[in-house]
Amino acid sequence: MEEKDISQAVISRLPRYFRYLGELRDEGVERISSQELSELMKVTASQIRQDFNNFGGFGQQGYGYNVEFLYKEIGKILGLDKTHNLIVIGAGNLGQALGNYMNFEKRGFILRGMFDKNPDLHGKAVRGIPVQPMENIESFVRENNIDIAVLTIPKTSAVDVAEVLVNNGIKAIWNFAHVDLNVPEGIQVENVHLSDSLMKLSYNLERYNKENTK
Amino acid sequence: MEEKDISQAVISRLPRYFRYLGELRDEGVERISSQELSELMKVTASQIRQDFNNFGGFGQQGYGYNVEFLYKEIGKILGLDKTHNLIVIGAGNLGQALGNYMNFEKRGFILRGMFDKNPDLHGKAVRGIPVQPMENIESFVRENNIDIAVLTIPKTSAVDVAEVLVNNGIKAIWNFAHVDLNVPEGIQVENVHLSDSLMKLSYNLERYNKENTK
Repeated sequence: MEEKDISQAVISRLPRYFRYLGELRDEGVERISSQELSELMKVTASQIRQDFNNFGGFGQQGYGYNVEFLYKEIGKILGLDKTHNLIVIGAGNLGQALGNYMNFEKRGFILRGMFDKNPDLHGKAVRGIPVQPMENIESFVRENNIDIAVLTIPKTSAVDVAEVLVNNGIKAIWNFAHVDLNVPEGIQVENVHLSDSLMKLSYNLERYNKENTK
Repeated sequence: MEEKDISQAVISRLPRYFRYLGELRDEGVERISSQELSELMKVTASQIRQDFNNFGGFGQQGYGYNVEFLYKEIGKILGLDKTHNLIVIGAGNLGQALGNYMNFEKRGFILRGMFDKNPDLHGKAVRGIPVQPMENIESFVRENNIDIAVLTIPKTSAVDVAEVLVNNGIKAIWNFAHVDLNVPEGIQVENVHLSDSLMKLSYNLERYNKENTK
C-alpha cells in the first residue's frame, strides 16, 4: 500500500483507533460503520473517513468496516506486526513500571536490557532481565539489534546518554527525561513529559474554577 | 488579566515555555528576545509572540522579555502559584514513581494519599504517605480537600473508580489507565496513554526504515 505523506496529527490518532478496534474485536463485533465508530469514539465520522483515506480508506464505508481487517491493517501501519527490541535506561520506579508492562510485549515490544548507574540495582531482575551498569550500554546496543531505547533518567544525564545511543546505532528514543533531546535527522524521538501533562491539567482546573466563581 | 478563550494547543505549549524560562532563570539570564527564545526552543518567533498575545503579550517584544517576570506569569497561568492536593490510585511501580517524583511537589502538587486494592501494599509508605485500601477513597477525598486524582490502575477498574471520584467531588483526573473516561462536563481529564505514545514512535521508526530501504 502506498502511503501519502501523513501528518503527525493523524499518526497520533491511529493508536486510539487501534485500541477501540481491538476492544470491538474482543467483544466479537465483526463490522462497524464510520457512524457507529464515530459515536463510540466521540469524533466525527468525517474525521474518521479522512484519517482512513490517508491509508487507502480500508474498504466500503457504506457497508461498514471489517473490524478484524481494520484492526490488523492499522496494527501493520503502526509496525506492530514486527518485533522491536527495547532497552530501558534508568531502572527506578518508572523504568521498572515500563519494563514490567505486559501490554508492550503483547504488541511486539520486547524488553532486552535494563541499565542503571546505581550499583545497588545491578543484577536485580525486571521480568527476568537483569539491570546492568551504564558502561555496558554501548556494546549491548551494538550486539543485540536494539531498536528502541527508553530513557527514564534525569535530564542532566539524558542528553549525553542519548548521544551515546545514537552513536551506537539506536534509531528511536522514547524519552521520559524532562528535556528536549537534540538528535540527528532520521532518529525518531517521542517525548513523554509528565510534568507538562500535569501542568496542563492544573491549567484547565484553575481556568474552570475561575470561570465558575466569577 | 483578562484571558481570551485559549486553544488547548496553546495550553499544551505553556509548560514547555515554563520549563525553558525556568532553566534560563537558573542560569541567571535576565532578559531574552522572542528571537533568542525561538532559536533555543526551535519554534518560530512569530509562534511565540502569538502564543504570548493570548495572555496580553508579557511586555515589550523589541526590548525582550524579562525572564523572571515571564516565568512567574506563565507559572500563575498554569496555576502553579497555588497548592494542589493530589492522591494516587494504584500503588504499583507507576503509581510509586509518580508519588515519589520530587518535581511535582516543587510545583505545588502535594501527595496526600495513596490507594491500592492489593493488601500487601497497605501501610507501605511512599514519601511518608501510607498506601490505603480502595474502600477509604470516598471518605478521604471528601475530608481532605483533594483536587487531583492520579489513576494508575487497569482499565477494567478505572471507569468505576473515576465515577466514585467524581461523585465525591474530585474535579481533575490525571488518567494513566488505557481507557477514555466518560466524565460529566466540568471535570478535567488529562490522559497519558503510554501505549499510544510508544505506537507512534514505532510508526515513525517503521516509516523511516521503509523510506530508507526502498
